Amino acid sequence: MVVKVYGPMCACAKRVMVCLTEKEVEFETIPIDVFKGKHKDPEYLKLQPFGVIPVIQDGDYTLYESRAIMRYYSEKYRSQGVELLGKTIEERGIVEQWLEVEAQNFHSHAYNLSIHLLFAKPFGITPDLKLIEESEAKLEKVLNIYEERLSKNKYLAGDFFSLADMSHLPFTDYIVNTEKGYLIRDRKHVSAWWNDISNRPSWKKVVEMDKAPI
Amino acid sequence: MVVKVYGPMCACAKRVMVCLTEKEVEFETIPIDVFKGKHKDPEYLKLQPFGVIPVIQDGDYTLYESRAIMRYYSEKYRSQGVELLGKTIEERGIVEQWLEVEAQNFHSHAYNLSIHLLFAKPFGITPDLKLIEESEAKLEKVLNIYEERLSKNKYLAGDFFSLADMSHLPFTDYIVNTEKGYLIRDRKHVSAWWNDISNRPSWKKVVEMDKAPI
Repeated sequence: MVVKVYGPMCACAKRVMVCLTEKEVEFETIPIDVFKGKHKDPEYLKLQPFGVIPVIQDGDYTLYESRAIMRYYSEKYRSQGVELLGKTIEERGIVEQWLEVEAQNFHSHAYNLSIHLLFAKPFGITPDLKLIEESEAKLEKVLNIYEERLSKNKYLAGDFFSLADMSHLPFTDYIVNTEKGYLIRDRKHVSAWWNDISNRPSWKKVVEMDKAPI
Repeated sequence: MVVKVYGPMCACAKRVMVCLTEKEVEFETIPIDVFKGKHKDPEYLKLQPFGVIPVIQDGDYTLYESRAIMRYYSEKYRSQGVELLGKTIEERGIVEQWLEVEAQNFHSHAYNLSIHLLFAKPFGITPDLKLIEESEAKLEKVLNIYEERLSKNKYLAGDFFSLADMSHLPFTDYIVNTEKGYLIRDRKHVSAWWNDISNRPSWKKVVEMDKAPI
C-alpha cells in the first residue's frame, strides 16, 4: 500500500516526506493548493478537521500532525531504513525532548520569519517588520543554546541523526534562503550541523520534488 | 531511585506529576519560585538551558519538556500502572496526533487566557483584553472540533484514556476556574470528558498537592 501525503509543497508535509524517505517507505503526493484555500474545502476537512497540512492516508488509516506522523512511521518501520528514535528508551527520551524544543521553542519564531520574509506576497499579507524583529531576537536566543549543545554533540539528541534534527529541516531551509540566513551561517556548530543534515540524500530528494511542477 | 520533579506548582510540571502518578512511579518535588525568577538562575539553567519548567532528574538522567517526560515514563513503565500510549502502534499514532493537537492548536490559546485572566497580577502584567478576546475566539473553534470528536469517542484518541487527554488537564483546569469556564461547561461532550478526566484520582492528587504549602 503506497502512503498518500496531502499537501507536499507545504513545509510541514516535507517533514513527513523526508521521514518516509529515510524509512524507505513508498509514497505518493496529492497537491493541496493552500494559496487558493483548498485546505479549508469540506472534502479536506473530513480528513483534517483543523484545516492544516499535512495529512496521510495509509490504506484505511488516516493520520495528521507532521510530528505524530514522523513518530508513527519511525516506530512502525523500526528495523527498516535509518533508526530515527535512538536505540534505547533513554535515547528516545532525549530525541523527544529536542523534538519538543523544536515544536515549542524554535518553530513559532522560524515560522514567523519564513511567512513574513518569504511568503507575505503569495499569502496577500503585509510583512510585519516588528514581528520580524521580535522573532529574530527570540530565535537568536534559541540558536545560542543550540550552538552550545551542538559544540558538544554532533546532532541534537547525541551522536546520531534523529527525528529531532529532521523536524528542523523545512523551516531552517526557509531561513537560510532569506536575508536572515546569517542566523544559521554565523554560528559555527549550528552551521556545521545544518550542512550535515541538509546534505542528506533524503532532504535533497524532497527539495528536488519541491522544484518539480505540481 | 525517586524521581525529582522541579517546579511542581507550574502547570506544565503537573502534566509530569499526573503521569508519574498514573504510572505508579514515586517522585519528590523541588520548588522553583517562578514569580521570583528562580527558573532563570544559573544553577537551574544548567538543568534546563531554556529556563522553563519542568525538568526531572532520575538518577543521572535529566530530561525536560513536559510532553517528552510523559512519553518517556509511559514507555519506560509500559506494563506498570495505566497504559497511556494505546495498545498498538496505530493507537499510539492517534494518541500522538491528539497530543500534537493539544500542543499546537489548544495550548497557546489556553495559555494566553490563563495568564491574562488568572496570573496577570502575580506576574506584574496588565491583562491584554484584545489578546483575551482573540484567544477565546480561536479556542472556541478548536473546542468545536473537540466537541465533534468527543461525540463519537469517549476520549480524544478513542475509547481509552491516554497522554492526549492527560496533557489537557492543567490548562483546562485553569480555564474552568476563570470567567470563561463556559467554554468547557457549555459543550456537552467536552464537559462530560472534562468531568471524567478531572475526576481521576491521579489528577485529584496533583490538585491537592498544589493546595499544600510549598
